[in-house]
Amino acid sequence: MHSKTIYLNGQRVAEDAARISIFDRGFQFGDSVYEVIRCYNGVPFLLDEHLSRLERSLRELSIDLPQPMSEIRDLCVKAAREQGRSPSVLYIQITRGVADRSYSPPSGLVPTFVLYCEDKPVTAERVYAEGISVAVLEDIRWLRCDIKSTSLVASVFQKMSAAAKGADDVLLERAGVGVVESGSGNLFVVKDGCITTAPEGNLILSGTSRALVLQLARGLSIPIKLAVPQTAEIYSADEVFITSTTAEVLPVCRVDSVRIADGTPGPISRRLLRAYRAEVTRETNYHYEE
Amino acid sequence: MHSKTIYLNGQRVAEDAARISIFDRGFQFGDSVYEVIRCYNGVPFLLDEHLSRLERSLRELSIDLPQPMSEIRDLCVKAAREQGRSPSVLYIQITRGVADRSYSPPSGLVPTFVLYCEDKPVTAERVYAEGISVAVLEDIRWLRCDIKSTSLVASVFQKMSAAAKGADDVLLERAGVGVVESGSGNLFVVKDGCITTAPEGNLILSGTSRALVLQLARGLSIPIKLAVPQTAEIYSADEVFITSTTAEVLPVCRVDSVRIADGTPGPISRRLLRAYRAEVTRETNYHYEE
Repeated sequence: MHSKTIYLNGQRVAEDAARISIFDRGFQFGDSVYEVIRCYNGVPFLLDEHLSRLERSLRELSIDLPQPMSEIRDLCVKAAREQGRSPSVLYIQITRGVADRSYSPPSGLVPTFVLYCEDKPVTAERVYAEGISVAVLEDIRWLRCDIKSTSLVASVFQKMSAAAKGADDVLLERAGVGVVESGSGNLFVVKDGCITTAPEGNLILSGTSRALVLQLARGLSIPIKLAVPQTAEIYSADEVFITSTTAEVLPVCRVDSVRIADGTPGPISRRLLRAYRAEVTRETNYHYEE
Repeated sequence: MHSKTIYLNGQRVAEDAARISIFDRGFQFGDSVYEVIRCYNGVPFLLDEHLSRLERSLRELSIDLPQPMSEIRDLCVKAAREQGRSPSVLYIQITRGVADRSYSPPSGLVPTFVLYCEDKPVTAERVYAEGISVAVLEDIRWLRCDIKSTSLVASVFQKMSAAAKGADDVLLERAGVGVVESGSGNLFVVKDGCITTAPEGNLILSGTSRALVLQLARGLSIPIKLAVPQTAEIYSADEVFITSTTAEVLPVCRVDSVRIADGTPGPISRRLLRAYRAEVTRETNYHYEE
C-alpha cells in the first residue's frame, strides 16, 4: 500500500508532520465537518455531490470556507491523482479553527483544512455475495444528523456495541420514529418489488450514494417509497441493503440474528449494485474484478 | 496573563509544540473525554470528584487510562501549582489514540493525554449581582449526556443559537421531558423555598458543582426535589440559577425575555453562592474580592 497523500491547509506534508494544535476546535469540541469520497482509478467519484454537501454542513454551522470551493475541488482532484490508480478514499475535514477554549467561538477564526488520500481496496466480493449481519440498536445521536460533523462519538459507541453483539454493523432505531439509518450508511428495505428508505430530514444524513441509488432505481422503474422503516418491516422484508460511499450497495442478510428472506442477497440489491458499478465505470473508467 | 502550563502525554511542552496527529481519534471522531477543573490559589478544587467522573467517562467508552489515576492526579496538582496562584482552569482531554480512520477502533491503541492549566479570572461580581439572560432552545444533543465526551458540536450550535437571540446562555428543553440543563451547567429552579433540579440519568451531566450545591442545600435545610423542570415552571419560578465549575452558582434573571420574579438574584441563590465560596476558601484558602 502506498503512503498517504496529505495536504494540511493546502500544503503537502509528510504523515508525521500532519499535526494540528491541541487548541483546534476540531479537537476540543468536534467543531468541524468532513467528507469521505471514493476514488477509482485516481478519480474522485461523485465529487461535486460531496463538495456541495460539505458546503452545506459548513453553512449550517457557520464555519467559513478555508479557500474558494473551486480550489478545494482542484486539490481533491490533484491529491487523488497523486495517490495513484488503486482504489482509494479522499478524506476532507474542515474545522472552525484554533482558539482559546470557549463554547462560543470568537469571530475571525481561520478554519483548519485537512485533506488526505489513502489507498483502500473495494469491499471484497465475498461480502457482497454473502451479505452482512446487523444489530438494531437505539439511535442515540444528536438531532442534526443531516450535518456531517466530526462529533461522532455516538456513532463510534453504537458500532462498538454492535460489534460486541457479534454483528458486522448496526441499524439505528430512533425512538418513536423507526429505523432511520445504518451505522454509517443509508438503509433500504425491499418488499414486493418496492424499495423504502427514510426521507431526507434532520434524522438522517442525505447520502450521496443514497441519492445515486434512488436515481438508478427510477431509471430501472423500481418503485420507491420515502418512509422510515419499522423493525418489524425489516424482519419481514424481501431484501435489506445499505448504501454508502465505501460499501456502494451492500446486502444485509441477518438482522438481530433473524434471516432476511432466504438469507442471501436478493435480485433488487444485485441489480442496483450492478447499476451503481456501471456508473462508477462510466465516470472513472474503473473496472471491477468480478 | 501567564502563558499556559501544558503537558502532552505527560511531558511538559511549549504551546506551539502542543500538537497532535490529524489521525488522532479525538480529532477525527470526537472519540475522547474531558474535564475542566477550577483552580484557586494554585489548588484544583473538587479534584477527586472530577477525576472520578473522568474515569467513569473513559470506562463507559472503553477508552484506556493513559497512566494510573494517581499519576494523573499528581500531574493535575503539579500543573496547577506551576501555573501560579491566580484563578485558573485545568483542562484534561484523553482520546482513544491514533489510528487509521475507521469507526470501530482497533485494539491496543495508546490513548492521547492532554493536560493544561491556564489563567482564568473568576466571573465578575457584576454578573452575579445582575444575573444572566437565557433562551430556551430544543436540546439536540446525543442521548448519553452523562458521558463527558468532546463530541460537543451540538452544544456549540446551541450556544451560538442562543447568542444569535441576544441571550447570555441557553436552557435545553428535551422534547417530552422538560428543561434538563443549561448550555454547559446544571439548572436549578426555586419555588416556595424548595429547589428543583433534574435527577441524574442519561440526559444530564452529573455536575460536580451540582453535587456540591445539593450537599450545601441539605446542610442549610433547603428542601430539594429531583425532577426535570418544565418551561412554564421556570417562567413562574421565584429564582433560577445555573451551577458549573467556572460559574459556581450563577443567577438567571431573564428567560426568553421573561423576567424571573423581580428580575434580580434571589436569596436562595445568594445563600448557596456564599456557601459554595466558603467551601472554596476552606479547601484552597482562596479569598474572593467581594
